[in-house]
Amino acid sequence: MKNNQFAIRPTDFKDQLTELTEIGFLDKDNESETNPLQLWISFLSKSFLEDKTSSTFEETLKTYMATDDQNLSEYIDSATHVSVVAFYNVALQLLKFNPDVDFSFTDPLAAMEKIQLMVADHNGASFTIDELKSAWYWLLATHNKMGQTYIDSLASKGYFTKFYGQITKPMLFNGKTLPVFNPHKLIREVVYVESPQDSDHDGKRDLLKAEILRPSETENGLKVPVLYTASPYNQGTNDETGEKLTHNVNVPLTHKQPNNLKYSDIEYKNDNQEIPAPRKIDGETKKAEQDFSRESSYTLNDYFLARGFAVVYMAGIGTKDSDGFRTTGDPDETISTVAIIKWLTGQLPAFTNRTDNIKIKAWWSNQKVAMTGRSYLGTLATAAATTGVSGLKTVISEAAISNWYDYYRDGGLVIAPGGFPGEDADVLAEETFSRRLQPGDFHNIKSQWDDQIKAIQAGEDRTTGDYNTFWDARNYHKNFKNIKADVFMVHGLNDWNVKPRNVERLWNGIKHNGVTQKIILHQGQHIYINAFRSIDYNDIINLWLTHELLGIDNQAKEIIPNVIIQDNTKTENWTAYKDWDNAENQQVKYNLSSDKLSTDTVTPSTQSFQDNLDQPTFDNYAKHNDTWEHDLIAADKKLTDNQLIYKTDALSDNLTIDGKVHVQLKVSSSEDIGLLSFQLIDYGEAKRLTVSPTLLSKNSLAETYDWREDDLREFTYAQPTPFKMITKGHINLQNRENNYKVDELKPNVFYNIDVELQPTFYKLLKGHQLGLIVYATDFGMTVRGNQNIKYTVQANDSSLVVPIHKN
Amino acid sequence: MKNNQFAIRPTDFKDQLTELTEIGFLDKDNESETNPLQLWISFLSKSFLEDKTSSTFEETLKTYMATDDQNLSEYIDSATHVSVVAFYNVALQLLKFNPDVDFSFTDPLAAMEKIQLMVADHNGASFTIDELKSAWYWLLATHNKMGQTYIDSLASKGYFTKFYGQITKPMLFNGKTLPVFNPHKLIREVVYVESPQDSDHDGKRDLLKAEILRPSETENGLKVPVLYTASPYNQGTNDETGEKLTHNVNVPLTHKQPNNLKYSDIEYKNDNQEIPAPRKIDGETKKAEQDFSRESSYTLNDYFLARGFAVVYMAGIGTKDSDGFRTTGDPDETISTVAIIKWLTGQLPAFTNRTDNIKIKAWWSNQKVAMTGRSYLGTLATAAATTGVSGLKTVISEAAISNWYDYYRDGGLVIAPGGFPGEDADVLAEETFSRRLQPGDFHNIKSQWDDQIKAIQAGEDRTTGDYNTFWDARNYHKNFKNIKADVFMVHGLNDWNVKPRNVERLWNGIKHNGVTQKIILHQGQHIYINAFRSIDYNDIINLWLTHELLGIDNQAKEIIPNVIIQDNTKTENWTAYKDWDNAENQQVKYNLSSDKLSTDTVTPSTQSFQDNLDQPTFDNYAKHNDTWEHDLIAADKKLTDNQLIYKTDALSDNLTIDGKVHVQLKVSSSEDIGLLSFQLIDYGEAKRLTVSPTLLSKNSLAETYDWREDDLREFTYAQPTPFKMITKGHINLQNRENNYKVDELKPNVFYNIDVELQPTFYKLLKGHQLGLIVYATDFGMTVRGNQNIKYTVQANDSSLVVPIHKN
Repeated sequence: MKNNQFAIRPTDFKDQLTELTEIGFLDKDNESETNPLQLWISFLSKSFLEDKTSSTFEETLKTYMATDDQNLSEYIDSATHVSVVAFYNVALQLLKFNPDVDFSFTDPLAAMEKIQLMVADHNGASFTIDELKSAWYWLLATHNKMGQTYIDSLASKGYFTKFYGQITKPMLFNGKTLPVFNPHKLIREVVYVESPQDSDHDGKRDLLKAEILRPSETENGLKVPVLYTASPYNQGTNDETGEKLTHNVNVPLTHKQPNNLKYSDIEYKNDNQEIPAPRKIDGETKKAEQDFSRESSYTLNDYFLARGFAVVYMAGIGTKDSDGFRTTGDPDETISTVAIIKWLTGQLPAFTNRTDNIKIKAWWSNQKVAMTGRSYLGTLATAAATTGVSGLKTVISEAAISNWYDYYRDGGLVIAPGGFPGEDADVLAEETFSRRLQPGDFHNIKSQWDDQIKAIQAGEDRTTGDYNTFWDARNYHKNFKNIKADVFMVHGLNDWNVKPRNVERLWNGIKHNGVTQKIILHQGQHIYINAFRSIDYNDIINLWLTHELLGIDNQAKEIIPNVIIQDNTKTENWTAYKDWDNAENQQVKYNLSSDKLSTDTVTPSTQSFQDNLDQPTFDNYAKHNDTWEHDLIAADKKLTDNQLIYKTDALSDNLTIDGKVHVQLKVSSSEDIGLLSFQLIDYGEAKRLTVSPTLLSKNSLAETYDWREDDLREFTYAQPTPFKMITKGHINLQNRENNYKVDELKPNVFYNIDVELQPTFYKLLKGHQLGLIVYATDFGMTVRGNQNIKYTVQANDSSLVVPIHKN
Repeated sequence: MKNNQFAIRPTDFKDQLTELTEIGFLDKDNESETNPLQLWISFLSKSFLEDKTSSTFEETLKTYMATDDQNLSEYIDSATHVSVVAFYNVALQLLKFNPDVDFSFTDPLAAMEKIQLMVADHNGASFTIDELKSAWYWLLATHNKMGQTYIDSLASKGYFTKFYGQITKPMLFNGKTLPVFNPHKLIREVVYVESPQDSDHDGKRDLLKAEILRPSETENGLKVPVLYTASPYNQGTNDETGEKLTHNVNVPLTHKQPNNLKYSDIEYKNDNQEIPAPRKIDGETKKAEQDFSRESSYTLNDYFLARGFAVVYMAGIGTKDSDGFRTTGDPDETISTVAIIKWLTGQLPAFTNRTDNIKIKAWWSNQKVAMTGRSYLGTLATAAATTGVSGLKTVISEAAISNWYDYYRDGGLVIAPGGFPGEDADVLAEETFSRRLQPGDFHNIKSQWDDQIKAIQAGEDRTTGDYNTFWDARNYHKNFKNIKADVFMVHGLNDWNVKPRNVERLWNGIKHNGVTQKIILHQGQHIYINAFRSIDYNDIINLWLTHELLGIDNQAKEIIPNVIIQDNTKTENWTAYKDWDNAENQQVKYNLSSDKLSTDTVTPSTQSFQDNLDQPTFDNYAKHNDTWEHDLIAADKKLTDNQLIYKTDALSDNLTIDGKVHVQLKVSSSEDIGLLSFQLIDYGEAKRLTVSPTLLSKNSLAETYDWREDDLREFTYAQPTPFKMITKGHINLQNRENNYKVDELKPNVFYNIDVELQPTFYKLLKGHQLGLIVYATDFGMTVRGNQNIKYTVQANDSSLVVPIHKN
């Protein structure tokens, strides 16, 4: 195992003592102790929470080895000092490292260096009393083999339950909040926020249900910050009716009528519709009228629920117990998302129920809000940030969409999110329309909902795949300039559901906003990373939110690197960088010839391929997209006529691609239609990481004592593979200029195209080859017309432009 | 979805009223109500736990439809009766069924019949007041779409928290205990049971750590029954050092010296070793000195922790915090397993710690114990039962080994548990030897442990694969006659880890013991089934344990069918049978000829195949056992010379195999060694169930309010496949008589063998073909010598004998 901790806060000795005292490791009985051995025993006795008597404590001491031939009990009886070696031998055992596997008792420090565990300062071979205090402090802040700090592992054993009910403010350690709030005393309540919109056009402002969990200490005056998750899935989904709307993708690509559209022709403009007046308020209360038993929760939020944060969930317009209609990401959805923040910060009213107009304030809120969540949830966090709403201090935007066109479309084509061919904005609207789950409510709005779905279908326009007003309304880039919240981004470099362009545009789109921005890029697909062994994600977010929402000066912004990227060639390797996809990155231009990529001059040549397949092969690939994907990259004989592959020679050095690769082709189609797909490939036998994490142990990560648990996971090596797809891209040959203007395409005439592949950060190892595959139908993402089209590439007028990372 | 509930207890109306009153649905305010509509409203208001005011209750009523055009609020306002249709329309919504998918408001009863939901008696189209009470009672007992009874779903919303701390005995509903005990008040304590053995030969009786969780009500005098799980994995495992011991299986089969062993020559006899005297007791207490924070728990136990049961975990000899050595299933391990039961029933002492000899009794135990757990855990439950220990009322033996020879060996061959080639008794001993995880303890016993591993390796004897004294000591069949506990068995018909013979021997081995025996056979592999949507496993076990451990006369033994088997041809279909693998089952004998199985007379023929493969093919199969398995059954050209396949014609009717298929062959080997493997195959394109369950929703099954959760799972259809393996078997041609006597094998001489394949229950559909594959090396299970051996079958002297199920 290799430990990567980015959230350890440098802390001076005086503050260490203060914190050790506050959490109870130093107390009046041991603070004046001058014998390091005695102090060590005292620390250990406070840590062995299971042992209630001196006999059982003594027995436990015997189960640890202090040196290679003395157990801890024997060592304590015979030693006069606490040797650094003995301390760290025991520390490694406390951290669950294993002498049979991870370290040797003769040299624990060597193992600690290798595992990347922090060793405290010491001047000699033994700790002085002050050095020992400091060493214990840093041990508490160090991750164990199960991906938890030692102090969090003590918390999961009940260390902090003694503070339950005794607390009037959050307790901190090393810049992060501690679980001193009893999660079984959480207050759960429901309110209905009145949002300034009427998305179901019933003449009344939409009421939005919000589910609140807050520490019981708020009843006694504690004001708490809020983690707010807007999750359209949260009140249930319509899997079956959603599935029914899924579109057939085995349809032909059709010719589009050329046009001369300018952006202003299709630009979405706010229609400034009149909205109904607010409800008349008939009274006010501090007491809710509804509660709930089990929210559909996000484990990161669960972690913070014991740490003095309130958590609020909202599913939004068109969901169970709320008004309105689903719109899949339009401005109405942004308004509804922001409404909750406005309520939390006193800018909008909420009611205790849907009929009596009794107002209820978020009187327990400290008016500082962060948004959390992955995928659609992170998308709404991003959307909310683009309004610049006050009170929203930061968004943690994980695997989030920043432009719905980049989710469902690309380059004038319908491009499915990976794994979901035929899904579209209408399907997602239907799936999340949980008002359907309450038949008594749904009965009244059935026909309006059918109309709404039809309107979305008309707007999304699967016929052309063009960018239009519908998509412009769902493009948050336009409002990046309004972002005032600090933005913490997390994205998978192998996320082919929400493709990396979504996060890249956000990353590079707010650099002049004057906000703090952080990004973690991992090697997974569309997953969350808050239960990994090799990176201290929870700690990082704790440090971040303690700063952002509790206003604690913990240097979070300085301590957390701006860019953390997981290495694709090794397990458990995360590196801090200054930037990602920087516009100044050096570029390498590869020329194309025959089947080669090279930086040399090339002689003229053309290569052609067809798109259609015999029907059985087509049917098989349509059913088994994975097989198609494999055969494509392996250049299986079934597909050799359907693709062009260009490869570099074996690389003489490692090569790290950093940013957006461009494919510049001169190309013709035999018809008046055409689509091209591209994959950039790493060719070379190697062990590579799985893109889905491996479950290391189920339920092993407790968010605190007797509370919810998460599964510990990690990216591990899969069986060696001869290749791996790095990134990909697509274009409709009738959208050579942009995604809204349709160009003429004459059969057999050569045109120049420039296609930006999805951004990446990828290390190719020495000896591997970089490859480019040019093909047409992408069985996982494009329409699959199986049409008789032949494409020809004028190789000598084509190139591949690759941005390079130099450190 | 199809609901299968086997644990609904027929209950007369008077008892229904008593129970409805006890749980609070009937009370002084509504018990005299004469208007069914008013009573229905009262029941609903007690069920809508989230709604704290009449306004929110009224709002919730509006979200349900009562008829196809009236919501529940409108219906209540306008109706004069509670129509059966309206009641069940609402009931289906309460049970989370969906009008868009599962039922229609015009005929809910048709859907209920299809889904197999119980409809209460009624004489007219509307319910009388008594009929309504009864209908509500049965609704509470009915499963919802998420695999929980409605009353358990109310429990998960907090319905029973009002009883926390108010309870002096378990509360029952429909014969099953209710979650009226606060799981966050559980008392957790550790004791050290003194077992009458000295398995590490240190001159002292082994102390065994037991972890206890018991309701806090026991402190006030409540005596509770115990669910006891003996789990060697429970204190941690040594995955890395276990892995290191894993044996190379790419080794040749070797000739064995013929012998004339009789059973009495290899029989294990108890050596009646002297054991050290018990410790002198230096005092007694009711208070433990150690606790623990989070046990490694089994979700079935978690379910019962809120329901008035104590749960005890023990890892056993050779595990962390206990004495002794791991033995992998020998009589010493049985003694240690039983020691905990003896402590729980007052027959053995336990101590508060390992040094002070202060005795602590299980003073809170009602002295009735059940054992639970899957795999090794269920194995130890079976082992404990074979001692006839008093106090052990029942064992729930899931996917359990009943003879370790049937786990690691078969027919004179080393046969790996599926998926674990190279694993053996020594590997498992090392993996579970968690004393290694406490270096201070391990340090003192390291060399003795090395000796113990060597002794196991000598005993298991991978060279011959023969049954010997080592295995006889680990064969629980010998002591089946002593079983006095009722036995509840659960096993997967696709479990190739613990193969079905293990459960079949137990099922058929205790029929004359005079105990009650039940069995559930599912279509999964080595899994547990207590979180499936289609079968009420938790309810069944609740009914069972309420009877067995609480002594409640709930007719559990009569209500629960003796045999429940999941259909392999349809999802969510479970059927009650009288017996499984009954010796009286009719048999069909198929003759072999060329490539056919038929009941006709056949003409003489021989067929031959070889065992060796070219090296690349061999290496590929050795690495990818799944590919080998697929190619074998598909008769891929890579393997056509390495197998014989005999198939019936397409079946003219469904055929259900019930029991142990026998392959009777006249066969020769070209060498003086030989092994044969057999697979019985269902040939025919069909959608088949996945053998690993599909996750339907994570954490959606709460064991009760604000407590642990389980993932809801179900066997679903995989993609259609052209074939499926039904069962398999293996034999060493030198073990033609039995597994301990070695026979001569002369090259090219024909011998008769009779091989019993693993027992099964399998329905072949009309039009399919039954196939038998004869081959040698089984890449997933046997040694893989890649030896140049040719086998020849005299087909006309060979046959396949198939037991048939007739209903």
